[in-house]
Amino acid sequence: MTYRFPLMVVGTVAVDSVETPFGQQDRVFGGSASYFSYASSFFIPVDLVAVVGRDFPRQYRKILEERPIGLEHLTVKDGKTFHWSGKYEADMNAARTLATDLNVLLEFEPTLKPGHEPEYLFLANIDPDLQMEVLNQVKRPKCRFVACDTMNYWIDNKLAELKKVLARVEMIVINDGEARLLARDVNLVKAARKIQTMGPQVVVIKKGEHGVLLFYGEKFFALPAYLLEEVFDPTGAGDSFAGALMGYLAKTGDVSFESMKQAIVQGAVIASFTVESFGLERLRTLRDGDINKRLDDFRKICRF
Amino acid sequence: MTYRFPLMVVGTVAVDSVETPFGQQDRVFGGSASYFSYASSFFIPVDLVAVVGRDFPRQYRKILEERPIGLEHLTVKDGKTFHWSGKYEADMNAARTLATDLNVLLEFEPTLKPGHEPEYLFLANIDPDLQMEVLNQVKRPKCRFVACDTMNYWIDNKLAELKKVLARVEMIVINDGEARLLARDVNLVKAARKIQTMGPQVVVIKKGEHGVLLFYGEKFFALPAYLLEEVFDPTGAGDSFAGALMGYLAKTGDVSFESMKQAIVQGAVIASFTVESFGLERLRTLRDGDINKRLDDFRKICRF
Repeated sequence: MTYRFPLMVVGTVAVDSVETPFGQQDRVFGGSASYFSYASSFFIPVDLVAVVGRDFPRQYRKILEERPIGLEHLTVKDGKTFHWSGKYEADMNAARTLATDLNVLLEFEPTLKPGHEPEYLFLANIDPDLQMEVLNQVKRPKCRFVACDTMNYWIDNKLAELKKVLARVEMIVINDGEARLLARDVNLVKAARKIQTMGPQVVVIKKGEHGVLLFYGEKFFALPAYLLEEVFDPTGAGDSFAGALMGYLAKTGDVSFESMKQAIVQGAVIASFTVESFGLERLRTLRDGDINKRLDDFRKICRF
Repeated sequence: MTYRFPLMVVGTVAVDSVETPFGQQDRVFGGSASYFSYASSFFIPVDLVAVVGRDFPRQYRKILEERPIGLEHLTVKDGKTFHWSGKYEADMNAARTLATDLNVLLEFEPTLKPGHEPEYLFLANIDPDLQMEVLNQVKRPKCRFVACDTMNYWIDNKLAELKKVLARVEMIVINDGEARLLARDVNLVKAARKIQTMGPQVVVIKKGEHGVLLFYGEKFFALPAYLLEEVFDPTGAGDSFAGALMGYLAKTGDVSFESMKQAIVQGAVIASFTVESFGLERLRTLRDGDINKRLDDFRKICRF
């Protein structure tokens, strides 16, 4: 048995409606697994586990085909693709969800095909039951590093299921509000320590324009964000951050603290591109050298 | 003519009432110039320009006397000392002002004594008219570097006066909310650029638990905060940050970009001590090596 892709992600592939101060756009290509896989594909081939409906635009599938993204587990079901509608106010820090139409997600039963045995697995933001279904199908210890994301909705409504997932992952990547909610503590240091007791020894807390905190066992790392004059659309920033982070880890095969720091820097840089346009548009236009140029710039900004 | 102190600060010396989730305390030693001068005194002697009332506790004056802080311009007037009363909610990020009793501040007329000619001047948070009165009494170019702070109240109520001050300073040190309000722009990069057009080429934006941004002409530096598990009382964090920053600049005599970055790191470290207790209590118990130990720790946390 062989596997084609060292990295696998399960999550949503969506068609979004997004409103920002810069404009309103319908049927933007979105979803946690879309952003994740596109971002991670800059580092390593990635297997995408998700479901779409019959209405999923052909040109969006083509966007995924541009990259080394395995689509064998992108199931097409009768029905409509998951649809998220959100609005960002002037400060661009938090999206207000206007509508969530689960559609085909309601009957999604992820089944991994024989021969697909990832070493790195990311359980992107999706129902914890679905995260668990995939987790149950990968083989340990061959799958050496599993990480997950989640969101307020699952913390509020499926905490028991989420905690079962947390008990079995090496890393969680969540935003500051989610960390506080999950740990029931406003102090982020304490929140991270509490989350570590739930399972993951690596806790990555995304703070949007305020950067990232890494709690790695007892070790700690803090990174500012790469600030932009124009944040066009923050959707997907967190998912592409996680994609680049996991892509870097899987590429280097190194999940040490030092490697994790580099992975987080890569994630911050990719996320900074994502927010420069709607959907995946900016990532699609990245040219050779763009990432390294911004990495160099970012290192300069943070060095003292 | 000689001067005794290369650094001077004008601001408030206050008696505060502070409520945090950890407790309520009355008549805490506070004020922008108190925190500033105590913090900067770890680096260089500082001349304190402020006013107190007859009720100003003798033990608080003694606290200032512990350090190389010049008190010749600490005027005592008939009346009561400036009193600020504030409350912090669980997230500790912003104080809600419950009361501001200006008292003797209303008739404060700062007059510098002959021989006091600072090279570095900090106009801490106080009425812009008072900032201007002091600025008008220092000699340029002997006074080579002037910086100021301000707050929402002055931006809302004395913008014209504040802008006159801004036109004549090299640096402004304000928090993110104030920067957005002053520039009328939510994006901090754009806000900083707009503030630079008002005068100061160096714009330092304090973001509390999210760190600091430095805009130095066209150059840029971002620093995370030194995170603590317990923030006991955030009062004075920004003023002691500015004190250490200016103290470091005055001590080194170097206001280059590289020096400014180091100064900001020193400021962040001193501020991290300040918030560990009410008032100046934590700074008072700092022992030899405490600052350098935390600096080393901080460098490690930020290095990648």
